[in-house]
Amino acid sequence: MKKGLKIVTIGGGSSYTPELIEGFIKRHAELPVRELWLVDIEAGKEKLEIVGEMAKRMVKAAGIDCDVHLTLDRRHALQDADFVTTQFRVGLLDARIKDEAIPLKHGMIGQETNGAGGMLKAFRTIPVVLGIVEDMKERCPNAWLINFTNPAGMVTEAVLRYGQWEKVIGLCNVPVMAVNTESALLQKEEKDLFFKFAGINHLHWHRVYDKSGGEVTAELIDKLYGPDADPGKIVENIRDMRFLSDQIAQLGMLPCPYHRYYYMTGNMLQEELEEAQHEGTRGQVVKKLEESLFELYKDPNLDYKPKELEQRGGAYYSDAACEIINSIYNNKGTQMVVNTRNRGSVSDLPYDSAVEVTSLITAHGAEPVHFGAFPPAQRGLLQVMKAMEELTVEAAVTGDYATALQAFTLNPLVTSGDVAKVVLDELLEAHKTYLPQFFSTELAPVGD
Amino acid sequence: MKKGLKIVTIGGGSSYTPELIEGFIKRHAELPVRELWLVDIEAGKEKLEIVGEMAKRMVKAAGIDCDVHLTLDRRHALQDADFVTTQFRVGLLDARIKDEAIPLKHGMIGQETNGAGGMLKAFRTIPVVLGIVEDMKERCPNAWLINFTNPAGMVTEAVLRYGQWEKVIGLCNVPVMAVNTESALLQKEEKDLFFKFAGINHLHWHRVYDKSGGEVTAELIDKLYGPDADPGKIVENIRDMRFLSDQIAQLGMLPCPYHRYYYMTGNMLQEELEEAQHEGTRGQVVKKLEESLFELYKDPNLDYKPKELEQRGGAYYSDAACEIINSIYNNKGTQMVVNTRNRGSVSDLPYDSAVEVTSLITAHGAEPVHFGAFPPAQRGLLQVMKAMEELTVEAAVTGDYATALQAFTLNPLVTSGDVAKVVLDELLEAHKTYLPQFFSTELAPVGD
Amino acid sequence: MKKGLKIVTIGGGSSYTPELIEGFIKRHAELPVRELWLVDIEAGKEKLEIVGEMAKRMVKAAGIDCDVHLTLDRRHALQDADFVTTQFRVGLLDARIKDEAIPLKHGMIGQETNGAGGMLKAFRTIPVVLGIVEDMKERCPNAWLINFTNPAGMVTEAVLRYGQWEKVIGLCNVPVMAVNTESALLQKEEKDLFFKFAGINHLHWHRVYDKSGGEVTAELIDKLYGPDADPGKIVENIRDMRFLSDQIAQLGMLPCPYHRYYYMTGNMLQEELEEAQHEGTRGQVVKKLEESLFELYKDPNLDYKPKELEQRGGAYYSDAACEIINSIYNNKGTQMVVNTRNRGSVSDLPYDSAVEVTSLITAHGAEPVHFGAFPPAQRGLLQVMKAMEELTVEAAVTGDYATALQAFTLNPLVTSGDVAKVVLDELLEAHKTYLPQFFSTELAPVGD
Amino acid sequence: MKKGLKIVTIGGGSSYTPELIEGFIKRHAELPVRELWLVDIEAGKEKLEIVGEMAKRMVKAAGIDCDVHLTLDRRHALQDADFVTTQFRVGLLDARIKDEAIPLKHGMIGQETNGAGGMLKAFRTIPVVLGIVEDMKERCPNAWLINFTNPAGMVTEAVLRYGQWEKVIGLCNVPVMAVNTESALLQKEEKDLFFKFAGINHLHWHRVYDKSGGEVTAELIDKLYGPDADPGKIVENIRDMRFLSDQIAQLGMLPCPYHRYYYMTGNMLQEELEEAQHEGTRGQVVKKLEESLFELYKDPNLDYKPKELEQRGGAYYSDAACEIINSIYNNKGTQMVVNTRNRGSVSDLPYDSAVEVTSLITAHGAEPVHFGAFPPAQRGLLQVMKAMEELTVEAAVTGDYATALQAFTLNPLVTSGDVAKVVLDELLEAHKTYLPQFFSTELAPVGD
Ligand SMILES: [Mn+2]
Ligand SMILES: [Mn+2]
Ligand SMILES: [Mn+2]
Ligand SMILES: [Mn+2]
Repeated sequence: MKKGLKIVTIGGGSSYTPELIEGFIKRHAELPVRELWLVDIEAGKEKLEIVGEMAKRMVKAAGIDCDVHLTLDRRHALQDADFVTTQFRVGLLDARIKDEAIPLKHGMIGQETNGAGGMLKAFRTIPVVLGIVEDMKERCPNAWLINFTNPAGMVTEAVLRYGQWEKVIGLCNVPVMAVNTESALLQKEEKDLFFKFAGINHLHWHRVYDKSGGEVTAELIDKLYGPDADPGKIVENIRDMRFLSDQIAQLGMLPCPYHRYYYMTGNMLQEELEEAQHEGTRGQVVKKLEESLFELYKDPNLDYKPKELEQRGGAYYSDAACEIINSIYNNKGTQMVVNTRNRGSVSDLPYDSAVEVTSLITAHGAEPVHFGAFPPAQRGLLQVMKAMEELTVEAAVTGDYATALQAFTLNPLVTSGDVAKVVLDELLEAHKTYLPQFFSTELAPVGD
Repeated sequence: MKKGLKIVTIGGGSSYTPELIEGFIKRHAELPVRELWLVDIEAGKEKLEIVGEMAKRMVKAAGIDCDVHLTLDRRHALQDADFVTTQFRVGLLDARIKDEAIPLKHGMIGQETNGAGGMLKAFRTIPVVLGIVEDMKERCPNAWLINFTNPAGMVTEAVLRYGQWEKVIGLCNVPVMAVNTESALLQKEEKDLFFKFAGINHLHWHRVYDKSGGEVTAELIDKLYGPDADPGKIVENIRDMRFLSDQIAQLGMLPCPYHRYYYMTGNMLQEELEEAQHEGTRGQVVKKLEESLFELYKDPNLDYKPKELEQRGGAYYSDAACEIINSIYNNKGTQMVVNTRNRGSVSDLPYDSAVEVTSLITAHGAEPVHFGAFPPAQRGLLQVMKAMEELTVEAAVTGDYATALQAFTLNPLVTSGDVAKVVLDELLEAHKTYLPQFFSTELAPVGD
Repeated sequence: MKKGLKIVTIGGGSSYTPELIEGFIKRHAELPVRELWLVDIEAGKEKLEIVGEMAKRMVKAAGIDCDVHLTLDRRHALQDADFVTTQFRVGLLDARIKDEAIPLKHGMIGQETNGAGGMLKAFRTIPVVLGIVEDMKERCPNAWLINFTNPAGMVTEAVLRYGQWEKVIGLCNVPVMAVNTESALLQKEEKDLFFKFAGINHLHWHRVYDKSGGEVTAELIDKLYGPDADPGKIVENIRDMRFLSDQIAQLGMLPCPYHRYYYMTGNMLQEELEEAQHEGTRGQVVKKLEESLFELYKDPNLDYKPKELEQRGGAYYSDAACEIINSIYNNKGTQMVVNTRNRGSVSDLPYDSAVEVTSLITAHGAEPVHFGAFPPAQRGLLQVMKAMEELTVEAAVTGDYATALQAFTLNPLVTSGDVAKVVLDELLEAHKTYLPQFFSTELAPVGD
Repeated sequence: MKKGLKIVTIGGGSSYTPELIEGFIKRHAELPVRELWLVDIEAGKEKLEIVGEMAKRMVKAAGIDCDVHLTLDRRHALQDADFVTTQFRVGLLDARIKDEAIPLKHGMIGQETNGAGGMLKAFRTIPVVLGIVEDMKERCPNAWLINFTNPAGMVTEAVLRYGQWEKVIGLCNVPVMAVNTESALLQKEEKDLFFKFAGINHLHWHRVYDKSGGEVTAELIDKLYGPDADPGKIVENIRDMRFLSDQIAQLGMLPCPYHRYYYMTGNMLQEELEEAQHEGTRGQVVKKLEESLFELYKDPNLDYKPKELEQRGGAYYSDAACEIINSIYNNKGTQMVVNTRNRGSVSDLPYDSAVEVTSLITAHGAEPVHFGAFPPAQRGLLQVMKAMEELTVEAAVTGDYATALQAFTLNPLVTSGDVAKVVLDELLEAHKTYLPQFFSTELAPVGD
């Protein structure tokens, strides 16, 4: 009989941690987490202690049987873990700020999961995640890796292809929020609707059906993106930018908020440029938000997740991670939208790639609900972005400069040619400390 | 607001009808069937009346609000139907007896859903089903067709490809029985296991996982087909024939009972020959069973499904049909194994083909759980059988002799060459009345 | 016994016609062209007469048995034709000048076969080509259509998919020039090298092998695009723009000159902007070139193709058309790079699409030499461009505005969002006369 | 500058060798073979000497500059070879006789390249070929392996998949003979026809076009297999068995002679049984033929290929091998039908498999002419046979009994069930000496 679960959270000093704690507390009846290890690095020690103490207060206030451990020793923490969650940021928010500012300076969108910035984030993050996987092979070879470090799709691809590790699920809050928003808009309960998502992380489309068997996708497109729609602020960290209503209607599917970067590139760039001049880039804004969050967390009387966290932009991420863990542990077969190996479920993408697709979460992992083939408007963008991801992941692992340049060229948010090279060079130099693979004189071995 | 459902059952005089009635009765709280129309043809009038009267007694005894109608006028019955189920047999059991006897006489397996016999059944049945679809287009264009007339896979393929009708689900009791048997064998509840089936009707494989996330397929293979296994009588209408245990272990998946025809061809043929000499072919046995069932049904005091029906061989078929109707009506998302359009869920088969695969049954139909690619031992057999099905369906529609011969040649249960031609000719002649497409002098148009 | 061939050239008044005539003259021994019909429209009558008279002089000077006919009656000309070649330009060079100028005004590349301009050219051209195909079905149902009207790939796709006409080959001079240039660079004869091209029109890659069996692609990459290369002016109508040498080396294949638009977008745009300010857009330059060519053609003593034609930018186009006609007529099996139906030869593109691929030209058409799958850097760009082509062709046929917008969004040379819509609107308005499908109030039927 | 070629022939003592010598002699002007090493094993020493001496006489009589070496030291012979040809038979004709007799005894077709016999031949041959490949990696890593040892398709598959050796071409005389026969039947020269073959070794179909562009496949089908055809003896080692003319017409393609085993299974079995009773199996007949051939070869005055060799059944094999070597050496781009890696050219088979397909033979190997997708009658048989081949090759490498049994089950010529197991056991036992992989107690490592 299983005694209880050991969870290890890499990047435990993150401001998101209270949501994760709350998630475990509210599922305690069916999900017996007995040990929670919050792991961070030396540079994050202070934050780890602040958020760790608060986590302990939350657990104590909830009166549940769960020990919270704080440590900088990752390998020790991983020993015999059941689930490992990852939510760290290599180079902290300062790195993000550079990812945003440098491309913008050269007239390109600066964004932390798309465009040049997102690709640099992949270069910094993937080697660290592959290091965690190596530790897991040694310390907890039966554990599941639940990743919500961005870019979550490319990280999943790297873990599957180069880490040779199958027990991984990548996670994003975008589908969760779409389901919430659209259910509310239709004035129906989530259980009375059927949502079918497919694509890759931050670039997926979905269709929605109701209980009568009818498809309500067109109705939702009209309500959300039609000529008379008032979309409101859908995702905290994406601007409230209207789509071209003709274009969305032609898709016959609902886009994700990040489609704005690809469908409204000119407008998004314009807005970013203006925003950078006034309030600062998103990274600069978030940095201030985080500082005030940590001020809150220091309050020795705070023993619950403060409302302010929701404005942070990552709401539902940690809660979704808890739900996945719960569904795996209890073989619930819950429908969730996750990053997993394609295996043909999205016909237009390579069989072995990572995709983000509606799946049943069972005791043995994610079983994709089959999606099939896309029409050309979706297919073309999806295929070029997946190729871009493959090249980015390869460059992240090998440190090959030309591969990185190729990935930049494919990304629709990067202007190709000399300017692409200039931006790449400047970004590599700016993040040099975190990119030994690009600066080492020795050849890095390519996996696969 | 929906008032209640109208169900039309084509072949309503079938001995299976009481199971269907029972299925609706036991689901009455959530599935408001208000009208049930049992439709049959002139030749089946007597049976329709016997079973129809019994159906009325069952409904009355259950005290539910549902009118049972008996009619020979199919088009009238179909008007405004919500669901149409099909369970008829063209040419009745006498045709089946010929399907079994003629191949056997020439040293080939005689079986009503595989081999030469099953192909002739397709030739007789498909034009009738396509006729029903044409009536549905006119009388109830929003209805679902739930087919459990055999060969259920080829019928589904024909409805999709030539009938151009998407709202069809084909059904078989074999997966239902496998789930029951294997859950019992593992001493676990079905809800604590995850079953993943894929293939085509009467030729699919499955894998099973338990709540710990571990795969229990190998354990089941060993229990059911290992050197020390005692399989017992798994399906009523398939002989209790042991598989070669080495072969099943190599598959790494559980076969279906009909695999015996393909994996144990020599032995199955031998047994059929012996059986035909002694007790008669399966069709002859069933004919006697049916006669005694109808004797029972005549009893004006019988108002429940008699136990004897379960020995008939089609147990769970009608109940599964009720469950599908229930899942569609209530958007339940139940996991069931059904015949539906592939759309890429089984990578080794054509995108548009019918497959039999674990699916979520929702208000808008069957959503396959993705299966992916098979290893070569499964792939080869599956692909040749699907090609055989495509040719058989095409021949059923066009009446093209050479296409029929080609289908015979591909079927592993038919010996190719002159003897195939002789058997085909003899079968066509024997069923001439039901095969106008093969004997008409005018060219039949090919759909698609 | 065949009497001799009848060739019909639509757009016969083109300045390219003398090269075509020269091509037939030099192949006269094996290719017995007896009738050549030059067809043009009312607006091109003057040019048709100038170039037509010159064609007659050329034929006469060569002393071959061939009648040259000039006509504005296309349907009459097509009667019993053996080959139809198309080389017309809807809206003449003035339309091209708009295709170039309007996008440029909004900060996008203006080019007649790529970007927004090339797409508008497709919108204007495809309906005309489909009209020719309809005439051919009636007047010369066994003829071959050899198209070299741009965008040649999309025109071929339209003819195959919407025209339902299989006997079409699309042609471009880019591969011809690559073969010439690279053979010279290697100081080898073409017959001692093996060239393997694949992709789509104006976006293909190739590999080269020599007689020793070794691949010389890397050597050519280095010579043409390496850090020390001096590429020179490869194609007349494409600027002499250096690629990033790292990027081309990573490809492991030779790009085509039009890749500069996709790989060097920033630089190409900059150059176009400068050029437009000084010498005018390419269309304006060509217009002047053409005027001086027609002055030459008027000379009643000119009875051979003047050297000046080669500077026009379309050299080898017409000669390649003659060679295809010759190879078909004589079943030569020559290796040529043509636009034809994929049928799986380029694994990464849809089975039924048009591709541009090394093929054997035989009496029954183009047989692609198999190419297989591309690595991700090529695959991603190729797939997004093919999807863009599919949408462009669909919009050209249906006149659907949203489909056109979707195509614009996918094209890497168009900035998506409001500016895409503005450019599209302005271009549609500018070409309104030639785009009834977009302005008609009646619904256009979609083929396929 | 290349000095001249070194060819190594493994199985040099074969009765076919004189055809090979003749092939090199007649191509001497363009193919400068300077060294020919005939290699055999101890058991073949006597035959090697007889045929080797004759080879020397042939070379001398031709007056060409070529040294013929005879050796039992394979590794020595392979040093610096340019081409290696393989034409050996593991276990000699006695093994073939067992391959034929044992299945026949159990009511199954006994044939050396199909059915149970051909599979056993694969089990014996593949490990030896993989050993040769290992020697080549060390001694002549740039050489081409031209294999015509049967089963040539599975051997090629094994070399590609498990040998990881790309420079291999597998060869069969069946397409050569079809081209000869059909050209003659059409009274046309081969160069005026276009032949397009695709499939796998001994199971391919082809289409034929003439110089007018018309397809003449149907005409050939009618002449060869129509109701009034008189096929004659097409291939020496296949019986003169008529196909069912309806069936062949439905294919719309020409079958290969070995299709008789699959399309006329009942008849072929009947004939084999009768033949075995009277003249003996084909192996027994060939053994006598060979003995008399070697008697001829002993004649010290015989210095040319005797006519009697053509009756041996392998005519054109060695000549085709010479032509491939010539085409590679001279980068001729000749169209030949060879076994090579699919790479998508036959859409219905796995991308990495060996296929037999019309190819251009160039200096860097075989470039398939694209074939595309088959209709279902061809597709089903082809796919099940390829899966059978994959399992057979895997079993040959691993010695895994269950995999062998699975392969037997898939083969349409083997009756599945207990009798398959009995035949497999008996064959393994009979060939035990040559099958260490099946009898070793140590686990054989699986490549790939
Ligand atoms: Mn996300
Ligand atoms: Mn069934
Ligand atoms: Mn061109
Ligand atoms: Mn052969």
